[in-house]
Amino acid sequence: MKIFTDMIMDDAAWKLLRDGVAPHEIVTPEEPAASVLSNSGADPALAEVDAAFGQPDAAAVLQSSRLRWLHVASAGYTRYDTNEFRNAARTRGLVVTNSSAVYAQPCAEHVIAFMLAQVRQLPASLANRSENGSNDWNVLRDSCSLLREQNVVILGFGAIAKHLIDLLRPFDVRVTAMRRKLAPGENIPVVTSEQLSDALAEADHVVNILPANSESARFMSAARFAEMKRGAIFYNIGRGSTVDQDALAAALHSGLLAAAWLDVTEPEPLPPGHPLWKTPNCFITPHIAGGHRNEMQSLVRHFLDNLRRFLEGAPLRDRVM
Amino acid sequence: MKIFTDMIMDDAAWKLLRDGVAPHEIVTPEEPAASVLSNSGADPALAEVDAAFGQPDAAAVLQSSRLRWLHVASAGYTRYDTNEFRNAARTRGLVVTNSSAVYAQPCAEHVIAFMLAQVRQLPASLANRSENGSNDWNVLRDSCSLLREQNVVILGFGAIAKHLIDLLRPFDVRVTAMRRKLAPGENIPVVTSEQLSDALAEADHVVNILPANSESARFMSAARFAEMKRGAIFYNIGRGSTVDQDALAAALHSGLLAAAWLDVTEPEPLPPGHPLWKTPNCFITPHIAGGHRNEMQSLVRHFLDNLRRFLEGAPLRDRVM
Repeated sequence: MKIFTDMIMDDAAWKLLRDGVAPHEIVTPEEPAASVLSNSGADPALAEVDAAFGQPDAAAVLQSSRLRWLHVASAGYTRYDTNEFRNAARTRGLVVTNSSAVYAQPCAEHVIAFMLAQVRQLPASLANRSENGSNDWNVLRDSCSLLREQNVVILGFGAIAKHLIDLLRPFDVRVTAMRRKLAPGENIPVVTSEQLSDALAEADHVVNILPANSESARFMSAARFAEMKRGAIFYNIGRGSTVDQDALAAALHSGLLAAAWLDVTEPEPLPPGHPLWKTPNCFITPHIAGGHRNEMQSLVRHFLDNLRRFLEGAPLRDRVM
Repeated sequence: MKIFTDMIMDDAAWKLLRDGVAPHEIVTPEEPAASVLSNSGADPALAEVDAAFGQPDAAAVLQSSRLRWLHVASAGYTRYDTNEFRNAARTRGLVVTNSSAVYAQPCAEHVIAFMLAQVRQLPASLANRSENGSNDWNVLRDSCSLLREQNVVILGFGAIAKHLIDLLRPFDVRVTAMRRKLAPGENIPVVTSEQLSDALAEADHVVNILPANSESARFMSAARFAEMKRGAIFYNIGRGSTVDQDALAAALHSGLLAAAWLDVTEPEPLPPGHPLWKTPNCFITPHIAGGHRNEMQSLVRHFLDNLRRFLEGAPLRDRVM
């Protein structure tokens, strides 16, 4: 069996992959990709492999008649998330998995870090040296709040949302999730995008985990921000393209939103003069919500676990097509 | 019944108190206290009341032969936490309660805000505008970690610690708590200060919630910091006096500790030239861990709940003596 990978990895991760894949053969691209999130370009080697691990070019994947399994090395899989690709994969019998299991916990922890930094006012309080009992101190102390019993709306109800809901459980928040299609047996209230208005109007925290695809482009529009409660907080760890950033900036300037915490933007990073850099209460981390120590090794372990399943003919984890 | 209070409150909290206490009489000091955390001084009015709510002078409390119940308006009660006061209260039949129930949740949320801000590297990542795949970005992403499966040691095992442990449960951390005396039936490992060394050596996160008293002064000494694992994180939301701040600064400078997050210091605030302001990876909030919107109303509600119990002869909540 031949396995293509365009992963950029440290020595430890490479060793883990080579040892885990042996005796099967690893094939690498001639031109390496710039980052784990970017496209490595069409590579002729893809035509001669049975499986691929990384972020290979979508067209080259479909052109490879031999390829039976693609394991995407991220939680997002935008370039493959088209009707054309889905139909071609179905026709060809190509199985597609992603790395949700690797990123669900870091992303969920990142969101709660954002939420608690907001309610505990960390950016302001870490910069404040006021004296107990002073007016400044009283104002700061009164601006702190609790996550407990607040209303949380989660846009996108996949692996990250489910981890997030687990972590939020002891905070006694009220969670409503939005997903494309309703499924029976959910243990929290779930709505479709058509039913979202009421939930948005009640939400203290709106957490956007939407992937980038044709349905989600500018999902958080001026109209949707206008449906939110005054003083609510918006978070985005999905994809920047799902938000109308001008509308977001306006909602922050008007005070409709009390704050926004973004791990993703469009583009990334925002250019130096971009208004969101100077918008009050807009806090931005540079697309690191999924990052964690030895991330490459985590990705390799997840791939190897799926490789074992693939070889045994068992169901793969994190299958998306 | 006459009830003394030296609380500094907004109108809404005053109304809540007056309405809740009626028909009993409220007595206020001639000289108001500077803040909820400071001493209002000995007040002759204390001699003529049955109950007190706030932070009255300890000596004046003991001199009042009529006073039967003191409800302290904070979680800490250092000025009353002496053998002399405890013995006198016992002899006199004076009941003392504190406001732990009001502060446990905000303090626990504040600690988790600190812990998650640390593992997700929020101070560094909010200041970082690096591009996906750049060296800076890879370094930052790799510096992020997970709370999941880390070792947490909590110094002080009261109401805040118990709330904290509840909130930490879904993160699958391993928690060990230290308390003065062991009690049977705890659902986590609990050690005394004599048994602390092994736990400190294994801890990724050491959370100090110790109150200030004669046993806890400089509890976190140079020797105890030296027992901690290289790269561990120290948090303090107890009292500043429980930490040897010179030893803490040295442990941060040497890299023994990766970071410290402090809500309390000695004094508060630290003076402008204090070394901890410039110590790398030392993050300080100005004693606001317990703060939350409408805090005064929360304190009044808790007092009124205990007043009802007091009048009914029922056991009081948060009784400390």
